[in-house]
Amino acid sequence: MNNELIIVRYGEIGIKSPVVRKRFEKRLLGNIKSALDCQSTLEQGRIFLQVEDVKEAHNVLAKTFGVVSFSPAWVTDTDCEVIKEELTRYTRKLVEDGQFSGEDSFAIRCRRVGQHSFTSQEMAAFAGSVVYQVTHSRVDLTNPDFEIFLEVRGDKTYLFHQKISGPGGLPIGTQGRLVALLSTGIDSPVACYLMMKRGCSITALHFNNYPYTSGEEEKIKKIARKIKEYSHGSRFDLYTVDYGEFLTRCIEEAPPRMTCVLCKGGMYQVAEKLAQNEGALATLDGSSMGQVASQTLPNLVATRHFTTIPLLSPLMGLDKVEIEDLAKKIGTYPLSILPEEGCSAAPRHPETHAELDKVIEALDDLDMDLVLPQLVAGIRKIRI
Amino acid sequence: MNNELIIVRYGEIGIKSPVVRKRFEKRLLGNIKSALDCQSTLEQGRIFLQVEDVKEAHNVLAKTFGVVSFSPAWVTDTDCEVIKEELTRYTRKLVEDGQFSGEDSFAIRCRRVGQHSFTSQEMAAFAGSVVYQVTHSRVDLTNPDFEIFLEVRGDKTYLFHQKISGPGGLPIGTQGRLVALLSTGIDSPVACYLMMKRGCSITALHFNNYPYTSGEEEKIKKIARKIKEYSHGSRFDLYTVDYGEFLTRCIEEAPPRMTCVLCKGGMYQVAEKLAQNEGALATLDGSSMGQVASQTLPNLVATRHFTTIPLLSPLMGLDKVEIEDLAKKIGTYPLSILPEEGCSAAPRHPETHAELDKVIEALDDLDMDLVLPQLVAGIRKIRI
Repeated sequence: MNNELIIVRYGEIGIKSPVVRKRFEKRLLGNIKSALDCQSTLEQGRIFLQVEDVKEAHNVLAKTFGVVSFSPAWVTDTDCEVIKEELTRYTRKLVEDGQFSGEDSFAIRCRRVGQHSFTSQEMAAFAGSVVYQVTHSRVDLTNPDFEIFLEVRGDKTYLFHQKISGPGGLPIGTQGRLVALLSTGIDSPVACYLMMKRGCSITALHFNNYPYTSGEEEKIKKIARKIKEYSHGSRFDLYTVDYGEFLTRCIEEAPPRMTCVLCKGGMYQVAEKLAQNEGALATLDGSSMGQVASQTLPNLVATRHFTTIPLLSPLMGLDKVEIEDLAKKIGTYPLSILPEEGCSAAPRHPETHAELDKVIEALDDLDMDLVLPQLVAGIRKIRI
Repeated sequence: MNNELIIVRYGEIGIKSPVVRKRFEKRLLGNIKSALDCQSTLEQGRIFLQVEDVKEAHNVLAKTFGVVSFSPAWVTDTDCEVIKEELTRYTRKLVEDGQFSGEDSFAIRCRRVGQHSFTSQEMAAFAGSVVYQVTHSRVDLTNPDFEIFLEVRGDKTYLFHQKISGPGGLPIGTQGRLVALLSTGIDSPVACYLMMKRGCSITALHFNNYPYTSGEEEKIKKIARKIKEYSHGSRFDLYTVDYGEFLTRCIEEAPPRMTCVLCKGGMYQVAEKLAQNEGALATLDGSSMGQVASQTLPNLVATRHFTTIPLLSPLMGLDKVEIEDLAKKIGTYPLSILPEEGCSAAPRHPETHAELDKVIEALDDLDMDLVLPQLVAGIRKIRI
């Protein structure tokens, strides 16, 4: 049917200044088109897409940030006779597909943009009588079993019955790039998702702690692939760096309690170097206040002491159970809980109240100035 | 009734090491007791409270972080005859109060801790027959209208029918203190709430931009009072600082486009000074990536360039509509949307891509070294 299309609605973009809005709309459309073969028009807060493959369109739109909701729709001329004819066919199709029947109560929801010879209420009443003639369903405006929407926009009218939720947020690529510390755990993939949702492009960096961990590469690739599904229109790369040797030095040359603090502090410094190379203005991690021993406030201060650009931690105020719920929603949870051995470098009693002076001293003893360039030189891209 | 008590459940604390768990449990109990007159016992992941005023207890527990859920309950001896007698009385009371009737299907949910001569299932079947004798209700284990819970713990058994949600998180005061930038808008109160939820104590700092804003003091007090309701057991203070004179200098001595960036950058520096005085290890604000012109990634980098301790922004990855939903949940939303005039210092075209060099230069021109101590000297506490 060439009168079928998809109406795409976007939210926060609408409240930006005209110049910013225009840039964001263009980016949103570009992001959609990078993943979906379609024709498009853009009009007053809506994008209209004509697609070949409706199912594919659903998959893409459900994972394109900036999309608040979308509706597969039929378009007709704004002419009562034509609307009657098309709405009759539309209703019959719903009945044939088993989605709607005479048993269900229903409501017509009509919206109107432009000048017309009828009000929204009059059109809703008219459309209600058309649907009634097909199904003999009872009208219930308060709590209907089924809703049919008419959106009258100038000389075009759109018929639809679904509003499918998109992921919200801002179009990816409108807010610059971040380097994300990506681990095989539950939290950091969620942190990536949230900042992509706010328009940031992501370069992910994995720290390979072998021989203190093992077999992580396949797992991190699976997780990265899942996050990448949300990056239509934006480059998403995964890098890894061998970090085991540095960890050995931490263990051998500093008090055992401090291993985790030094490990994390070193990671931030390596990530900043990659950020420079990637043109990223900030780094990103999955820290959540007080969740584990390394995430106490004193440790946070100590590990971040050497950072020189902002380190964003969008999970800082979330409970573990809230983070897990998000991970389930975005699909990374089943990948993150795949079995793995924990990091064997972690001491029995990790420091929970790191003293900044001692951390500075320990990093000094580790010759961080010399070690950092070596670590950075070992960063390599992984194909995902 | 002196066999009435309240069972309090807590979550994440349970997964901490024994030493940390003990400290967190003690703090949670202390926080509750700071606001509620009660007797208490603590046992295997549960706190049992005996209170005078059940309604007051509800109010306190619903706003005490660390509480996952709570249930008003009756306690009886773990003796089938006594349980039968008490459960009969309990059921009759539910019927009298109009909460449960013969029309409702029901299920018994039984949990057991300890050694007993019966299984949980046997106790559930027994209790079901007791309830049936009172109401003749139909049993429906899958989708009941009403649930009655029996929790058998050693020689005590608890009867209840409600699990009321608490706010979750960690007990406030377990994670140290933050200085929060608190404005009269929607976002920053939510940022405070989220970090209090993760165990942080808060000192709030309001920037009074008079004459560019006016009449904010009453509004900020109302908002602070609402947030303070969640701080049982922890000091919550509100400070204000006159910031208008600094804003005037920004306007007069730097390019107009940069006013907002310089304003925000200065705020962070003042907040850090207060953090030193308050023994706070980090600062906190309500930034959300890309939400408004001042929150682009380049602006974020520029405004944070002079920070020397971590600046936490737990809303960084949330959409405006998500932040508003949280504000409604915690009760600050209706206060934040009270009418006010916007800041008249904001230029028509604020900078959205601040160049770091130019910001550094502008702050240098403003003699920030001299201005900062004057600003800090003007910080004063507001009674709330």
